[in-house]
Amino acid sequence: MEVELQLAVENLLARYVHALDDGRLEEWPEFFVEEGRYRITTAENLERGLPLSIIYADSRAMLRDRVSALRHANIYEAQRYRHGVSSVLVERIDARTVRATSNFQVVRTMHTGEAILFASGRYLDRIRVDAASPRFEEKIVVLDSRAIDTLLAIPI
Amino acid sequence: MEVELQLAVENLLARYVHALDDGRLEEWPEFFVEEGRYRITTAENLERGLPLSIIYADSRAMLRDRVSALRHANIYEAQRYRHGVSSVLVERIDARTVRATSNFQVVRTMHTGEAILFASGRYLDRIRVDAASPRFEEKIVVLDSRAIDTLLAIPI
Amino acid sequence: MEVELQLAVENLLARYVHALDDGRLEEWPEFFVEEGRYRITTAENLERGLPLSIIYADSRAMLRDRVSALRHANIYEAQRYRHGVSSVLVERIDARTVRATSNFQVVRTMHTGEAILFASGRYLDRIRVDAASPRFEEKIVVLDSRAIDTLLAIPI
Repeated sequence: MEVELQLAVENLLARYVHALDDGRLEEWPEFFVEEGRYRITTAENLERGLPLSIIYADSRAMLRDRVSALRHANIYEAQRYRHGVSSVLVERIDARTVRATSNFQVVRTMHTGEAILFASGRYLDRIRVDAASPRFEEKIVVLDSRAIDTLLAIPI
Repeated sequence: MEVELQLAVENLLARYVHALDDGRLEEWPEFFVEEGRYRITTAENLERGLPLSIIYADSRAMLRDRVSALRHANIYEAQRYRHGVSSVLVERIDARTVRATSNFQVVRTMHTGEAILFASGRYLDRIRVDAASPRFEEKIVVLDSRAIDTLLAIPI
Repeated sequence: MEVELQLAVENLLARYVHALDDGRLEEWPEFFVEEGRYRITTAENLERGLPLSIIYADSRAMLRDRVSALRHANIYEAQRYRHGVSSVLVERIDARTVRATSNFQVVRTMHTGEAILFASGRYLDRIRVDAASPRFEEKIVVLDSRAIDTLLAIPI
């Protein structure tokens, strides 16, 4: 077990979800390397090897476009999200890259006060760790459920 | 990243929620310094800068009064609470104090067996870390929802 | 605080829940020592000192039987489970054994996409830590609720 590495990955995940939960969407692309890949899919699609994605992006530029779309549609402001991330497993791939698997769940609270379990699943991440601040090379969000209840897919 | 400090803060938070979830309310004030401040508010109030609080206390003595009131009203015994705390970010303020931000959610189980998501939100903590055992100088519980469903506000 | 020990226990718990959530039930007995004990009970039973258990096993062989029964009944395949484990407190018992207390909750997602909070509670674990890979000597799953909604009790 590499103690520093484990905590550095947990710290990246913590900063990532706090940015989302605080509504600081503009910071979201900065958690990825320039050619970083982001995908939201379902466990069912992943198991069947289907390439279907709810969101797919393979650069920071695409992530920034997604943020613009969400801001333009005023989608993100109507509710609050709260992530819980746990059971983070870190595995070295090579000197500069690690694989991280973790569980997440997201609670959504509406303006009315009503709270629901919005999503649960796994993060399958490949993380560049050789720089001062680690970043995602690839982040795959695997939802347990088939569908999520939003008009426009949001970052998870 | 200061490894020991990170784990010391996570350990404080873990001991805190286990005391609450085990119903050991009398230990609750002991997690604070003598003049410690505790506040439960909502994200909405905090964003608008409103001083409204669901609970406000600025000393251990006030926290002890709250515990007495809860014991007297037999409020706490009627159900079980289960906290999940995650994504703990620790930042040094100075040699003896840190700021810690984390996500929490609380599940409540009634005697009938029915379980609901009782609360979710953020802990915004200022923690004294120079003593053998770290304690809260200030703990602000920021609820995602506007209201919580209890007759008498309980510690979270 | 023993940093390595804390993270080794968290890592065991993380591998344990990922095995369950991934449906790799055959790996479940391997997280226990040969004479390992596993019990699912309720907080109510535990407080009253009642020996009632929803599952009780005191060897890997019994755990393997349980897995066979679940596979035979096709119970486990019909839904997905997602564990969240947090607030892990580790205490040394002796040179080769520790006690670990943690909170968990499990979300279940049906094939229809419907997700519910399936279970919440505490893990009370005694863990052998002197070998290369730590294992459970005893794992007691204490449910907050009186009952869980399954035809055949599953590992938690």
